[in-house]
Amino acid sequence: MGDALPQPVLIVGTGLLGTSLGLALRRHDVEVLLVDRNPENLRTATGLGAGRAYDGPDSGPDVGLVVVAVPPDHVAEEIDRALSTTDAVVTDVGSVKTAPLTALADHEGLARYAGGHPMAGSERSGPLAATPTIFDGRPWAVTPHATSSDAATAAVEELARLAGASIVRLSPGEHDAAVARTSHLPHLLSVLVAGRLVDAPPEHLALSGQGVRDVTRVAGGDPGLWQQIVTGNADAVAGLLAQVREQLDVLIDAVDRGDRGQLGAILELGVAGTRAIPGKHGGPTRPMASVFVSVPDHPGELARLFADAGASDVNIEDVRIDHDPARETGLVEIVVDETRADHLHDSLGSRGWETHR
Amino acid sequence: MGDALPQPVLIVGTGLLGTSLGLALRRHDVEVLLVDRNPENLRTATGLGAGRAYDGPDSGPDVGLVVVAVPPDHVAEEIDRALSTTDAVVTDVGSVKTAPLTALADHEGLARYAGGHPMAGSERSGPLAATPTIFDGRPWAVTPHATSSDAATAAVEELARLAGASIVRLSPGEHDAAVARTSHLPHLLSVLVAGRLVDAPPEHLALSGQGVRDVTRVAGGDPGLWQQIVTGNADAVAGLLAQVREQLDVLIDAVDRGDRGQLGAILELGVAGTRAIPGKHGGPTRPMASVFVSVPDHPGELARLFADAGASDVNIEDVRIDHDPARETGLVEIVVDETRADHLHDSLGSRGWETHR
Repeated sequence: MGDALPQPVLIVGTGLLGTSLGLALRRHDVEVLLVDRNPENLRTATGLGAGRAYDGPDSGPDVGLVVVAVPPDHVAEEIDRALSTTDAVVTDVGSVKTAPLTALADHEGLARYAGGHPMAGSERSGPLAATPTIFDGRPWAVTPHATSSDAATAAVEELARLAGASIVRLSPGEHDAAVARTSHLPHLLSVLVAGRLVDAPPEHLALSGQGVRDVTRVAGGDPGLWQQIVTGNADAVAGLLAQVREQLDVLIDAVDRGDRGQLGAILELGVAGTRAIPGKHGGPTRPMASVFVSVPDHPGELARLFADAGASDVNIEDVRIDHDPARETGLVEIVVDETRADHLHDSLGSRGWETHR
Repeated sequence: MGDALPQPVLIVGTGLLGTSLGLALRRHDVEVLLVDRNPENLRTATGLGAGRAYDGPDSGPDVGLVVVAVPPDHVAEEIDRALSTTDAVVTDVGSVKTAPLTALADHEGLARYAGGHPMAGSERSGPLAATPTIFDGRPWAVTPHATSSDAATAAVEELARLAGASIVRLSPGEHDAAVARTSHLPHLLSVLVAGRLVDAPPEHLALSGQGVRDVTRVAGGDPGLWQQIVTGNADAVAGLLAQVREQLDVLIDAVDRGDRGQLGAILELGVAGTRAIPGKHGGPTRPMASVFVSVPDHPGELARLFADAGASDVNIEDVRIDHDPARETGLVEIVVDETRADHLHDSLGSRGWETHR
């Protein structure tokens, strides 16, 4: 594999994504060179086997592909440097695609650049959090611009494929509109909900259930990174925030007037939105159902449960565990294809588990 | 057990919560009577063993406790009926506490009423979704008003205890402020995010990751029920929506002006909010960490993984499975106490699993 990939690949930036990409490419024996302003990160990444340190253009064969994997604020300058100092195809893994392109508009080598954005990440950062499997089955947006060469686009797509990702081809503008909607807006509204919890009396927060935990989880992400992402995609984000403000005004008016029709219309739109999200990994959405099982709160019981679930020949789509340290018991939610839920429920019940749908 | 609980208990409404409560009380041999306007639901609930059908006041001993478990719109009238037709203590399990109390303000029997609200539910509804374990370890807000008798409050707390819940005592007003913040506001903002997905091109939605799925999950809830909840708690919800609107304006301004300081302050407040949420079941928040494991996508492997995790003597706090139908492989995230994550990682690694932190 890897025949179509221009080599060696130079990865600029050995944080979580850069190092993970190096590890993923090394699985296919791609020649990977690494560079980072931070010598400690570079040492860690090479030590993990993500590639070898790059000593500059005189030290070996010409670089075939440069992957810029630095924080959003520095993406444009590193693409510029790569286009100016090499003849390689250049791509990046940044969260925003239009802003760096605008900054590079006059660069004579721009045909050699095609952007990319793997939808992969973690709450952790840095090379020690890296893993070659981080891209497995995830969407990787490939975003050629109007003058990207076919060779540049093909190289970036081959890179995404070798990393194990699923390619989603979008223009830079479409990409930025898409992530504004599916990532940046959800993040910012999650932040607004979480922000309202700060001044709450602890006895009020004692009523927190799974809903508020889910809605606010992403709000815990690194503010420094999100500052760069949001300001880098300001136009698309601002457009959606304006729409939300308009809807919020309608909602406030409906609540003030007790207008159930208006409130219902907004709530129905939300339901429709949740149904618009495709299944994980872009597959078709299949209807899922949950089977709940009461499990004594020690590790052996969970193993026994999954052994019994396995013997039921049902594919488990998701699992949630909600257990209570005070009670030595837990509730395990097993999510399966809707058509298999009754079977799993009965099968576990016949094996002595306390289950319910 | 159950000595302190006035019996028999009459449950008015055999939906998810009423039927689940009957099943939970029957575990302790509490005498449970059931009534519902819908004869089919009542038949189902009695058939499940949640109690026996109530034939009216002449058919047996005086009712000791009435639990109103009907949709929010009908709570006040059913409390009124119970106070007027019995000498029993009366409570309810509704999501909103001030509005029914206001409607009942002049009732001469009001001292016999003390409200309640178990923080338990499901995306499913009706008696067939019922389970006796639904309240296990969940908060149950007990909300006596200014003139509730001590006996009424004690009876409601005993009810919550027998159902397996953890009691959180709040005034009706505090309760409504608390759920506005921890449940109703998160729901409505989740709805606004989800509503923005409806018109998105499918290729944009292909970039949806776990973040937007988490933020929008609750937006899929029943619009008819949420209409009643939100309008029933309109004052508290309106106050928080006004605060969010103010913050949203600050956010929009920060994005428009590229004001990173202002944006950063909002993002930091969100991080602080996520940290304010107590651990599940109100316990102290312990720092958690995740270990990721690549698992071949068939049931036996998952059982083997949990057997190995069990042998590592690490208590599993949560599990998420992210698998890719197209690739026959999955990524399992195992959440454990931060101090045990390295041990689990190493232990699973030594058993041949491909793991990372």
